[in-house]
Amino acid sequence: MNQPVHSSRSLREVVRPTTFIEPVRLSKRLGVNLTIVTETFQHTGSFKFRAAYNLASKVSQTKIITASSGNYGQAMAYACKLLGKSCTIVMPANSARVKIEAVGEYGGAVDLVDVNAKSRASRVAELARENPDAYVASAYDDPLVIEGNASLGLEIAASGRRFDFIVAPVGGGGLTSGIIKGLRASSSDTRVIGAEPLLANDAARSLREGRIVANESEPQTIADGARTLSIGRHNWEIIREGLFEIIEVPEENIKEAVRLLFALANLKTEPTGALALGAMLADPDRFRGLSVCSVVSGGNVDPQVYQNIIAGQ
Amino acid sequence: MNQPVHSSRSLREVVRPTTFIEPVRLSKRLGVNLTIVTETFQHTGSFKFRAAYNLASKVSQTKIITASSGNYGQAMAYACKLLGKSCTIVMPANSARVKIEAVGEYGGAVDLVDVNAKSRASRVAELARENPDAYVASAYDDPLVIEGNASLGLEIAASGRRFDFIVAPVGGGGLTSGIIKGLRASSSDTRVIGAEPLLANDAARSLREGRIVANESEPQTIADGARTLSIGRHNWEIIREGLFEIIEVPEENIKEAVRLLFALANLKTEPTGALALGAMLADPDRFRGLSVCSVVSGGNVDPQVYQNIIAGQ
Repeated sequence: MNQPVHSSRSLREVVRPTTFIEPVRLSKRLGVNLTIVTETFQHTGSFKFRAAYNLASKVSQTKIITASSGNYGQAMAYACKLLGKSCTIVMPANSARVKIEAVGEYGGAVDLVDVNAKSRASRVAELARENPDAYVASAYDDPLVIEGNASLGLEIAASGRRFDFIVAPVGGGGLTSGIIKGLRASSSDTRVIGAEPLLANDAARSLREGRIVANESEPQTIADGARTLSIGRHNWEIIREGLFEIIEVPEENIKEAVRLLFALANLKTEPTGALALGAMLADPDRFRGLSVCSVVSGGNVDPQVYQNIIAGQ
Repeated sequence: MNQPVHSSRSLREVVRPTTFIEPVRLSKRLGVNLTIVTETFQHTGSFKFRAAYNLASKVSQTKIITASSGNYGQAMAYACKLLGKSCTIVMPANSARVKIEAVGEYGGAVDLVDVNAKSRASRVAELARENPDAYVASAYDDPLVIEGNASLGLEIAASGRRFDFIVAPVGGGGLTSGIIKGLRASSSDTRVIGAEPLLANDAARSLREGRIVANESEPQTIADGARTLSIGRHNWEIIREGLFEIIEVPEENIKEAVRLLFALANLKTEPTGALALGAMLADPDRFRGLSVCSVVSGGNVDPQVYQNIIAGQ
């Protein structure tokens, strides 16, 4: 017997409105009129909550299984807790303890897998066979994920602010496709630029080749939220036409962006969260004198990694 | 001849609304229903902009002189820039370069004084004699400062959120007296608790003795925004009756609060900004199970100081 589903509030009622920041000194430094849209204070510390809650609230299943070593796992755990559903998050056994703890604190069941013996995908498939009533959730390649992330595009459009460009990180493509979808649903034609690590530039290559191109192995960029093998099929359908372009961001620009956000905007971000500002550092001439919205996707970062970046390492 | 004063917008039009955060994991850790009100994204990175802009926009003088090595100097510099006024910020010659640069970037004139040869106060008096048309601004002991900071109390009251306590840092008393004034003007009787470094507990001692008591020398607390010799006379008139109590916060609790805000709320704060959470760590039983609003006053901190705190030093 299924456990009863609690009466659920809509995403709009639950999501924390995003935070707009106009950092004067950082604008001056870059020579742009900069607005930061930060999801670091979203529930669970990243935009992923938008997707997770939307998905978990709309599928009929009361149990959800997903693989995530990062923000999506925390987001899904908390979304399911709010909705009275249960979820299992498959994580590598060597994940940082703080990440495992976080999923647990948000109420998720952690399933640790020794990735040297078995891939996360095969462990998810195994769990799915054991739990035929469960919904197996992708972190990005699902219309419900895109629809959830579209809420951020709707908020940016509804803010009444006008931008020449909105720049946002690209990993699996869930965030940029969602923002594009939300903007267009609001009749905004603001151009969206993706910011992707140069070390993990499958999306940029996909746009150039006109088809989905995958990385051969998990790219070891410091922006760990963008260590995806390829963008998703549902995301690609939106990105191929809707994304203005992708800027490939060298690692040093990502780290410098983390430092600038710390020093001149009082903002703690994870490396993936700083990708959009990193793109502006990588291609400054494109943005000079313009009004630019730089999206910070999340703030959850290992303290030691963060200290090393701030210390210039 | 005075330079013309630019048409000025009201504080309400210029101030950035404060940021409310509900950090689920931090609430759980403390056993309270916690809301953070953070001024780290206020213009110039601290609540001081509220006071500086209110003062600079309301005095008739077009030149303002003040002594500050920290947030008030940056705030006054930027407020005067927005208002088309000029200002001179007297700073110790050995101030951190980043602080001197910040005042300059916001458009303020920096006057460096060798504090071994001459006190900041006497340098301010000297400048005042040379500029008889200038307004000499206190960072806290001025009705216009309190009125500016009251805007934060008004915002908290207008948010419709109900709290058992609002906890805020105490240095010169400008912030707590302003919050109390704003709350009471909104017919809110929410109790306000001050958080003061134990090493700089002049306000706590003043409350106990029923009169203003001063520190004998500048206290060397890590919360450098609270290194004041005593609270101001105008602040005292409000605090003596309006403040529920003061919690004296040991240095270790201040640092632990900085770490918890970093780890569980994605919030970069300066040590002074973490005082209110530090008070909750110092006296946890008082707050357990209650709805508490913890005010973060600012986020400007030397990178090395911050790294040391995050590293547990």
